[in-house]
Amino acid sequence: MTVSHLLPSAASVDRLCEFLRFRSISTQSHHASDMQACVKWLHRLLRSSGFTSEIVETPGHPALLAAGPQRPGRPTVLIYGHYDVQPVDPVAQWTSPPFEPTIRQERLYARGATDNKGQILAHILGAADLLRDEGDLPVNVKFLVEGEEEIGSTHLADVLRHRAEALRCDVVAVSDTGMVRHGWPTLTYSLRGIAALELHLTGPDRDLHSGIFGGAVRNPADALARLLASLHDAEGRIAVAGFHDDVVPLADWEREAFAELPVTDDDLLALTGAPALDGERGFSALERIGARPTAEINGLTSGYQGEGTKTVLPATASAKLTFRLVPNQTPAKVLAAVMRHFEERCPGSVRLTMVPGHGGLPYIMDPRGPWGMAARRALEDVFGRAPALLREGGSIPIVQAFRDLLGADTLLLALASPDANAHAPDENFPLENFAAGQALHRALLREIAKVPAVGA
Amino acid sequence: MTVSHLLPSAASVDRLCEFLRFRSISTQSHHASDMQACVKWLHRLLRSSGFTSEIVETPGHPALLAAGPQRPGRPTVLIYGHYDVQPVDPVAQWTSPPFEPTIRQERLYARGATDNKGQILAHILGAADLLRDEGDLPVNVKFLVEGEEEIGSTHLADVLRHRAEALRCDVVAVSDTGMVRHGWPTLTYSLRGIAALELHLTGPDRDLHSGIFGGAVRNPADALARLLASLHDAEGRIAVAGFHDDVVPLADWEREAFAELPVTDDDLLALTGAPALDGERGFSALERIGARPTAEINGLTSGYQGEGTKTVLPATASAKLTFRLVPNQTPAKVLAAVMRHFEERCPGSVRLTMVPGHGGLPYIMDPRGPWGMAARRALEDVFGRAPALLREGGSIPIVQAFRDLLGADTLLLALASPDANAHAPDENFPLENFAAGQALHRALLREIAKVPAVGA
Repeated sequence: MTVSHLLPSAASVDRLCEFLRFRSISTQSHHASDMQACVKWLHRLLRSSGFTSEIVETPGHPALLAAGPQRPGRPTVLIYGHYDVQPVDPVAQWTSPPFEPTIRQERLYARGATDNKGQILAHILGAADLLRDEGDLPVNVKFLVEGEEEIGSTHLADVLRHRAEALRCDVVAVSDTGMVRHGWPTLTYSLRGIAALELHLTGPDRDLHSGIFGGAVRNPADALARLLASLHDAEGRIAVAGFHDDVVPLADWEREAFAELPVTDDDLLALTGAPALDGERGFSALERIGARPTAEINGLTSGYQGEGTKTVLPATASAKLTFRLVPNQTPAKVLAAVMRHFEERCPGSVRLTMVPGHGGLPYIMDPRGPWGMAARRALEDVFGRAPALLREGGSIPIVQAFRDLLGADTLLLALASPDANAHAPDENFPLENFAAGQALHRALLREIAKVPAVGA
Repeated sequence: MTVSHLLPSAASVDRLCEFLRFRSISTQSHHASDMQACVKWLHRLLRSSGFTSEIVETPGHPALLAAGPQRPGRPTVLIYGHYDVQPVDPVAQWTSPPFEPTIRQERLYARGATDNKGQILAHILGAADLLRDEGDLPVNVKFLVEGEEEIGSTHLADVLRHRAEALRCDVVAVSDTGMVRHGWPTLTYSLRGIAALELHLTGPDRDLHSGIFGGAVRNPADALARLLASLHDAEGRIAVAGFHDDVVPLADWEREAFAELPVTDDDLLALTGAPALDGERGFSALERIGARPTAEINGLTSGYQGEGTKTVLPATASAKLTFRLVPNQTPAKVLAAVMRHFEERCPGSVRLTMVPGHGGLPYIMDPRGPWGMAARRALEDVFGRAPALLREGGSIPIVQAFRDLLGADTLLLALASPDANAHAPDENFPLENFAAGQALHRALLREIAKVPAVGA
């Protein structure tokens, strides 16, 4: 059975279109009633499919908890997803209206189709069909569907804390990541963490005339450039003492997995539009994205930025930095090393102020362990080839919350295509991915059933 | 005779107040009639004082050419000044209205008082009194008073070209610079030149997600920081090959003159508000300002500059640079060296575009030559002490035009006090400086009369 043979049932597509018609935009307060209507629709669907279901109110938008038959002695999997969607601007760029689901060339176009209504409904319908056909599910299944993912999952950690018993599970499964290539099964097993830092340098007490005073005092923009240039060595490696202390080296099997990813340097060039790839020597571009820490300048500000020339020696210069972290780096330790690095190098002729920003831990789970192997078998079964094992460069903070608050690893099972236009006009979900998602859910439960429950 | 003994006559102060009441703001077109009225007032004053005078219309504001008795066999001095003034905003910060000249604590407060009506009128009245008292002047005196100095002297070079014969002279005298210290006579004998350059670096074709792509491609803000950091070596010296090829080393007498300037490092710290002075090793701060080239970053722009964090890998990064030049550097040669420097160092993974901007030559004349010595004797005679010999860091392009188009050096005889608030609210001119200016004019003519005319 491979994905190219799968087509979803007309009934399931109708269900998805119903789901997609709700204007569940979490960030726009005038859509609060749409949010309520959407979660109630899901609630009714789950109840009518044989699940217990409960709408959990929060100070923001409600979440939904549901469960299939729970029996002792078998593993419990928690499926997480979200029913809220991004705003639709610029709405004029949509080929068909964002809340009128439309099928073109075997893709379903609508806001939320690939982020994340298509995927979470695939899991729900996959379970519902199995329950209807067999009267039970092979493992204990729970669903957590929140309404605030697009606005930072503001209240989800509280839900995890307050409903820890109801949410107790052995493993979490999430389909909210991307496939490395259309139709290519993908298991993401690592995410990078993040640490933010702002630098502010002050020299003179106002912008000075660069003729009258230039040469007497240090230009803070120059001092900033020198500090920033000191972040990397000639090999493109971060040159901050202690920065790499906690970095777990890439294992041989990981480098092999990177090498096998069906993404070429030419693909990355086309995706980024850069003249050439570049970065830390000794690692492939995909390794640098997924498995190496980075120090990125997100913004620079100093002096005159308008048209033409203004001959000032600026009073201030600032930079916004974010560091992407890999296991087992922590934001606190990395920021301490970076701040020490800058403090040691900043000349006394400018004043340096550093403002640490938000941080998030990196995440990794072993795709060779029992849960990872179950996911890999399920993916291979549905898609007809061994899944890509991916370390992704981005950060999904909720995954770390599942580990911290539920004690469970997360299986990130991609169902989105690279050209799905998440967060953009003409967001879409290939119908075959919808069918594959339902099949994947059933395959995942079958494979998880073979894993002995922890503590069982 | 020293300045502290001098007070201007009531009649001359009345004259200056009349001059200052004209709202001759050249940059504001609704003041065009004020400009006309002002230059006509000057024209009538000069004619009634025994000078020939002519208003020279330009496509912008008119200039005025005037001359005292011209006799062969004696030197000719051209006195240059301007009757246009800066705008008055923020007008609420003026203690008295900017066009109602008001005397407080022996200073005359009004827009234009020190820039440049007070000084040019001191020269005119100095000459007028001498002509009235003695029926002649000791040398041939010409006046050129323009109305576009505050807007870049747009049409002055054309006036110099078209009226070269009428403006023919042996030396130019200008009082539009500042005294190093209140009451301290100052002869500026050098000005720095300037060359502007913008750098634009482009990496990816749009701002990228720093998690999804960070590590694969070069961050243009990082590439920019490294290019800018390469501009100086560890000694603070500009590290561009060939940059210093044409720099004339400081002579011993110049370093002595710098050392004798009555301006301390503490003065510069107070003036700039910087935590410490800093710059090229081996030179004093005043030497670095006046006699060493600089590379200043005037502005930096890249990525996200708003509040908080945005995790982008920016598509572009830009810097605005100006280089201050010293004799005998030229903007063309310096920019060629700098552009080569950046081209050699820019990695192929970003695209570099460089946009050269305006340029101006540095200026120097020998204050030990006959004109310089005449000016020094005149200054010492009036102020009671040997003048400071100053190389200034700024640029006054018209001085180079006098050399190029009239073939004459310029004596820059300061009459403005450091706290004169030029271009700012409460602009003022100490009455003693006004009196000293009139005396200086007479002394200057006397001393210039002792210099054999070139070609005579």
